[in-house]
Amino acid sequence: MNSWSTPRTDLAVEAKELLSRQVKEDIPGVLTETLHDDDVVVTRVHITTIQAGQMMGKAPGNYITVECYGLRYKNTPLQKKVMNLVAQELVNLAKLPLTATVLVVGLGNWDVTPDALGPRAVSKIVVTRHLQKMLSPELQGGVRSMCALAPGVLGNTGMETAEIIKGVVTAIGPDLVIAVDALAAATSHRMNTTVQLANSGIHPGSGVGNKRFGLTQDYLGVPVIAIGVPTVVHASTIAMDTLDTLQDHAAFSRYFKSMQNLSEHDQRTIVRQVLPDTLGDLMVTPKEIDRLINDMADIVAGGINQAMHPNIDYKNIHNYLH
Amino acid sequence: MNSWSTPRTDLAVEAKELLSRQVKEDIPGVLTETLHDDDVVVTRVHITTIQAGQMMGKAPGNYITVECYGLRYKNTPLQKKVMNLVAQELVNLAKLPLTATVLVVGLGNWDVTPDALGPRAVSKIVVTRHLQKMLSPELQGGVRSMCALAPGVLGNTGMETAEIIKGVVTAIGPDLVIAVDALAAATSHRMNTTVQLANSGIHPGSGVGNKRFGLTQDYLGVPVIAIGVPTVVHASTIAMDTLDTLQDHAAFSRYFKSMQNLSEHDQRTIVRQVLPDTLGDLMVTPKEIDRLINDMADIVAGGINQAMHPNIDYKNIHNYLH
Amino acid sequence: MNSWSTPRTDLAVEAKELLSRQVKEDIPGVLTETLHDDDVVVTRVHITTIQAGQMMGKAPGNYITVECYGLRYKNTPLQKKVMNLVAQELVNLAKLPLTATVLVVGLGNWDVTPDALGPRAVSKIVVTRHLQKMLSPELQGGVRSMCALAPGVLGNTGMETAEIIKGVVTAIGPDLVIAVDALAAATSHRMNTTVQLANSGIHPGSGVGNKRFGLTQDYLGVPVIAIGVPTVVHASTIAMDTLDTLQDHAAFSRYFKSMQNLSEHDQRTIVRQVLPDTLGDLMVTPKEIDRLINDMADIVAGGINQAMHPNIDYKNIHNYLH
Amino acid sequence: MNSWSTPRTDLAVEAKELLSRQVKEDIPGVLTETLHDDDVVVTRVHITTIQAGQMMGKAPGNYITVECYGLRYKNTPLQKKVMNLVAQELVNLAKLPLTATVLVVGLGNWDVTPDALGPRAVSKIVVTRHLQKMLSPELQGGVRSMCALAPGVLGNTGMETAEIIKGVVTAIGPDLVIAVDALAAATSHRMNTTVQLANSGIHPGSGVGNKRFGLTQDYLGVPVIAIGVPTVVHASTIAMDTLDTLQDHAAFSRYFKSMQNLSEHDQRTIVRQVLPDTLGDLMVTPKEIDRLINDMADIVAGGINQAMHPNIDYKNIHNYLH
Repeated sequence: MNSWSTPRTDLAVEAKELLSRQVKEDIPGVLTETLHDDDVVVTRVHITTIQAGQMMGKAPGNYITVECYGLRYKNTPLQKKVMNLVAQELVNLAKLPLTATVLVVGLGNWDVTPDALGPRAVSKIVVTRHLQKMLSPELQGGVRSMCALAPGVLGNTGMETAEIIKGVVTAIGPDLVIAVDALAAATSHRMNTTVQLANSGIHPGSGVGNKRFGLTQDYLGVPVIAIGVPTVVHASTIAMDTLDTLQDHAAFSRYFKSMQNLSEHDQRTIVRQVLPDTLGDLMVTPKEIDRLINDMADIVAGGINQAMHPNIDYKNIHNYLH
Repeated sequence: MNSWSTPRTDLAVEAKELLSRQVKEDIPGVLTETLHDDDVVVTRVHITTIQAGQMMGKAPGNYITVECYGLRYKNTPLQKKVMNLVAQELVNLAKLPLTATVLVVGLGNWDVTPDALGPRAVSKIVVTRHLQKMLSPELQGGVRSMCALAPGVLGNTGMETAEIIKGVVTAIGPDLVIAVDALAAATSHRMNTTVQLANSGIHPGSGVGNKRFGLTQDYLGVPVIAIGVPTVVHASTIAMDTLDTLQDHAAFSRYFKSMQNLSEHDQRTIVRQVLPDTLGDLMVTPKEIDRLINDMADIVAGGINQAMHPNIDYKNIHNYLH
Repeated sequence: MNSWSTPRTDLAVEAKELLSRQVKEDIPGVLTETLHDDDVVVTRVHITTIQAGQMMGKAPGNYITVECYGLRYKNTPLQKKVMNLVAQELVNLAKLPLTATVLVVGLGNWDVTPDALGPRAVSKIVVTRHLQKMLSPELQGGVRSMCALAPGVLGNTGMETAEIIKGVVTAIGPDLVIAVDALAAATSHRMNTTVQLANSGIHPGSGVGNKRFGLTQDYLGVPVIAIGVPTVVHASTIAMDTLDTLQDHAAFSRYFKSMQNLSEHDQRTIVRQVLPDTLGDLMVTPKEIDRLINDMADIVAGGINQAMHPNIDYKNIHNYLH
Repeated sequence: MNSWSTPRTDLAVEAKELLSRQVKEDIPGVLTETLHDDDVVVTRVHITTIQAGQMMGKAPGNYITVECYGLRYKNTPLQKKVMNLVAQELVNLAKLPLTATVLVVGLGNWDVTPDALGPRAVSKIVVTRHLQKMLSPELQGGVRSMCALAPGVLGNTGMETAEIIKGVVTAIGPDLVIAVDALAAATSHRMNTTVQLANSGIHPGSGVGNKRFGLTQDYLGVPVIAIGVPTVVHASTIAMDTLDTLQDHAAFSRYFKSMQNLSEHDQRTIVRQVLPDTLGDLMVTPKEIDRLINDMADIVAGGINQAMHPNIDYKNIHNYLH
């Protein structure tokens, strides 16, 4: 699958932005709510009908985005703030009794930095399922049973991630699966600054690694919450954006006037010449990608830990950490 | 579990050596065959009865050891030779039709160098299960279906490795599981120079990480071949060896004469004073452990690849590698 | 420094291509020689005058490029072929007696994958300077004295790399410095498939990490050969290429006709809108960047080892390796 | 050099303990001061004469040890407490004006976990030397000029670490060198729980990697403070300790009575049989060595940062971090 045939974005908030450029009115079946302060924007997109989902290229469900451009720079208080917001949204989305068992799955490839968000986040999850019998009576029932797995990618295991997870779900019997994944964005400023939570699971073709099978409640038999961070922009998106920018100028500039009528098919033809087929998936990432992925894995894992372990005193969390 | 209560060795060949020091005659139910040249010693220990197994501290089955002390030093031809021997012994032990599917499991912890043998070996396995449908008709049936997983350890996942593997076996349905693991040796010269193959699976308490559940045909429902490399000696073994050496001298030296009657219980008391309980598992490893683990992972993975993919031309193996 | 103000390429062969698009005739003071077979193209660009250097944006000197697009895919024989060619060109460029001491310097940042080519190559160099006194008399004089250093980047050390190297050169007194660095290319198909050797040293502003000080014979007092591999394309290059492709179409298509007269200044204005200033250096890399960097580090280090240690039998090279 | 010929410890506090076992009275020229609370013991050993230094096997100077056995377990408040103590002792030892420039050197090998303390600590140092000209006037003079380097080990560079540092010191001209190194301890409970500061520099043969050249004020021309953490116990120490324990029992037990007169030479003979010569440096480390090294690198780097940057508000330290 070449980069220009994949969707330009895995974010519902961007799918809506792209759609709104064409359709200048409200999209029926899509409800949007936005909250913001100086640092952070929280957007809740609710896709309520299958038709709306088809227009948006997303399954029906709730998609919550926490955006904070300040995360580009090392800033501990801002990271904490975003972590708290992720935790809060996750609690609302999961609506889970404390006795429920949760399996956190890290999708993606350890060895490909921008795809390593899932495995790195999983390594920071406070797992407790194996400690349940060892807990003192007063702690038991107060510490949620959590377990976690980063199974690796199809090319390295020879097994679809979905197959592996289905097997583990059968053996372990969790009440909820939380799947963490690296995503592609349509706009470069959302890279490594945005967290998306969704209760619709993970669908084929999404993510940095282009899944072939979905990870959904239908397939696994338990609810699935997907938490994703856009870590790349496809190189083709940069090329398409350049053409879009030109067309935005076309109405006002004699230079670009003739471009006004350029069709999407023409656009793809040009991009294909810039990015020849044989090169596969070219990704755009910032230079500090390694540090940024670690920061975002901290935020995602911290958000999950805080939402799922409300009774753990964070001053003593080191007692629970592996 | 403290280091002095664990078995001093996971190698059948060493269990027999230790036993033979006490029992000066043949052990009934244990058959041993040894082959060697200047570089390599191959020992096949066959434990034929449950009683013999109890004496040896091992389940009944075949245990083959390939020892090559020259592996301590970087030596590509010697590595190749040992790899070929491992492949040959694995073919004989597995007796598998080419159409059978094989799941290779890497036990142990990526983040603890001497325990990382399994995960590192798994990363070098030529996985092909996902390519079966893409293979050209003349290749199909000629390339074995292989898949591989390194699930991580209990403390990081909250799930017993055996539970995870059982779930995956249920989902995938392999015909054979090959489990690769880091072991403890009783003698320091066998560290990182020895490969053991066994058709009895992996049993609780063995390995560097002290498994609590076994990985056996009984539990998984499919045959299990264990391939292990001793990568550590427990610190307590060094202390015990010092006492053993003293006792060996006792008969000849007036200094140590009084030690002749030192019981195993007395030995343990002394070792406990040298290595206080609170320190957990102290391991003895050579300084070059990181390189040695990589070399041994190459040998084990190379042996598995060669045994399981007899039709792959190794000049073109890069075409199959992820 | 933002990505659109940096030169689009560090490769002399590309600088010449870009220049030839504008200047349709021969560039005075630039001599070019090309050799090729089905797999590999070797281009030798000789910049003979300061004026020619200014037009090309490069210091006068010899620039040799070995290009092999097949390196995108794992292919051991092709890697070996390119390694041999690099070794041969390096021997011709260095013209060094066997008694000369060589210091290999790996520029760039271990922690930023596309910038890690230099440090990774340095870790594969056969260093021998410290062994000179231990060598047997018949080996002495036959094994070149080699040493190697990867000092890290300004942001991590607080010292200009050039300062550190100058200090080490003063202390050690090598006869030649070979500096290995990751470069930026103007065309995506040259990423990780091309090696450039140059006898003009490394100049400020080049490389993935934008050096502020040069590493030249003038500054260090000894000859400097730079060996570089383009590992990234700046995101701005993709945007600029899209505009160039449009302009190439302009003559033939009524849609793009009006773009024929778009100035470079207009182009930059558009690119600046697509890639906002605050994002810093966005880089385009392939997904398999980690493996590709390792492969290219093998080729560069192998080429240096072979050129500098002509008397080492490669079957026994493991005896020399750390 | 084999492990039993190296000194059993790099810690002055242990050298004194070992000496005091033999010499039952005060050692002339050695002053000792001890402070402690429930968590931490601080010992200051002052070696005032060359003769005392020879008895102790250490150069004359001040040696301060901060010991905290609780560091074996993840415990953030305890880590912070030890970090503060290290910072305080470093301030007292360095007595440095704020305008002085400091070079922090990380000794040891990135690729050998127990030897990686120095390089890992260096990666956490807040370097500022390159920012001095960019600082606003009110910050200038308030932020110390710090730079840092981890040059790698002789086997990887072909250059003595001392040669490299001498070259860099010449080029940069720092007022103080702080050298961070991994050490060997004589007792296993001090591994990864102890920090030693010394104003006598680093001497040949000490550390995990057995330096051949010292890093001293004599050689470099500027004062050198060494900060070390014992990360290993030599395997031979375990064997020697077993014999020592036996001898301690000898007086009371009829079994060991005959051992009372065992000479050090006899001890070494026995140890040599347990740990054959060919195995090189066997080290004893705990299983969680990777995490422990990271924790100790945090403490050492944090202590240096706090001591050297007294004016940096730690809430905003992320603004200075690379």
